[in-house]
Amino acid sequence: MSGPDAPLRVEELRARLKEIGRERYHHRHPFHLLMHQGALGRGQLQAWALNRYYYQSVIPSKDAIILARSEDRNFRRAWRKRIVDHDGDGPQDGGIERWIRLAEATGLGRERVVSGDEILPAVRFAVNAYLDLVKNRTFLEAVASSLTELFSRELIALRIDALRKHYPWLGGGLDYFTARLEQAPADAAFAFDYIARNACTRAEQDQAMAALTSKCDILWAQLDALYFAYVQPGWIPAGAFVPAKE
Amino acid sequence: MSGPDAPLRVEELRARLKEIGRERYHHRHPFHLLMHQGALGRGQLQAWALNRYYYQSVIPSKDAIILARSEDRNFRRAWRKRIVDHDGDGPQDGGIERWIRLAEATGLGRERVVSGDEILPAVRFAVNAYLDLVKNRTFLEAVASSLTELFSRELIALRIDALRKHYPWLGGGLDYFTARLEQAPADAAFAFDYIARNACTRAEQDQAMAALTSKCDILWAQLDALYFAYVQPGWIPAGAFVPAKE
Repeated sequence: MSGPDAPLRVEELRARLKEIGRERYHHRHPFHLLMHQGALGRGQLQAWALNRYYYQSVIPSKDAIILARSEDRNFRRAWRKRIVDHDGDGPQDGGIERWIRLAEATGLGRERVVSGDEILPAVRFAVNAYLDLVKNRTFLEAVASSLTELFSRELIALRIDALRKHYPWLGGGLDYFTARLEQAPADAAFAFDYIARNACTRAEQDQAMAALTSKCDILWAQLDALYFAYVQPGWIPAGAFVPAKE
Repeated sequence: MSGPDAPLRVEELRARLKEIGRERYHHRHPFHLLMHQGALGRGQLQAWALNRYYYQSVIPSKDAIILARSEDRNFRRAWRKRIVDHDGDGPQDGGIERWIRLAEATGLGRERVVSGDEILPAVRFAVNAYLDLVKNRTFLEAVASSLTELFSRELIALRIDALRKHYPWLGGGLDYFTARLEQAPADAAFAFDYIARNACTRAEQDQAMAALTSKCDILWAQLDALYFAYVQPGWIPAGAFVPAKE
């Protein structure tokens, strides 16, 4: 089968997904560019850590929804790793705890971060859209929405260097990212393999690509909201985090 | 009963709700202030009409979710009016059709508006948060979230005058608003009466106030996204509406 309705071959599918990442992944977002240039102040990093905490905190719920929708024990065994990575296991901390330590390293108190009281509404809406996606779109789309991890290793490696260089006072706050350097590529490989084997028709492949696009929009919208409230301003919506004067 | 846990009396509850509106309702949003001063260009009004269409288009779904959650036939008979108002009845157009005509009056084609393809992701996420609220929070909160209509008549009256004065080329595109001048206060009176009678404890009253606050955040976030993409810029996210050069 060929023509517009023919399924893409695996390498073509991979190339298309990477193209979406090149265009829409948040490595290009001006908030990240400023961060990596060392141009953000402490209050801006605090706003980022506090808001991004909300995203981190719902990841296990997101993955549990996917787990709940799978009827395949082997898939569930593999996917469960993500929940362990973020929630931790026994004495081992997970990504959420590491993110709290990053926020603490910016100078925020743990309670203030965990309460979520000062999150930008637009960030909350974008993150909740991710839960909505994995709940209400097809299982294939739910899995495909995680494929931003195809692009995250490179961004994280760059970020670790930039944060160490420009914000040395963050100290050990970067453990979250060093852990993700290994976790994210493994997760991405599993998810891509799943999509490559299970998105059999061109329509299903198109859905997978659309889900990845939606996920990129979800990440991008969070940074737009941060940029508008804390960089360009703009203004801070009522009730949201207000940085202390520096 | 008195003290911090005592239920508020009806007039005190009304005053508290109005106070939330004074602080958080989007009549204060700079995008609206610019609109009412006549300071927006055609492309900016198009972006507003196109994005706000998405909000208008889900209102009957929002109200049908509330209808579906009610076990009271009399409540359902009254609430059903909202769906009729927006979807129309027989030869009578509803609010959605009138909004499309407003968008057409700004110079956009109907198909382009109705497709929803060019909506800002942040607007989509905020509007979907409204659906999420009426689905997943208590019934009382779902009803209370409609109480922004307590404040809308005044904003709409102001807007009709301002749009006629500053953008006379909108012509008959303002029918949506003239219809809402009568619909919104009737809806608000019913919803307020329902809350006043059914939010019996202070905790329930607090929930109702929190739901109204959330709804204000939902409206505000839509305008923040419009302002960032089309007024201050900022930038327009990938895939979103790009106004023609004026």
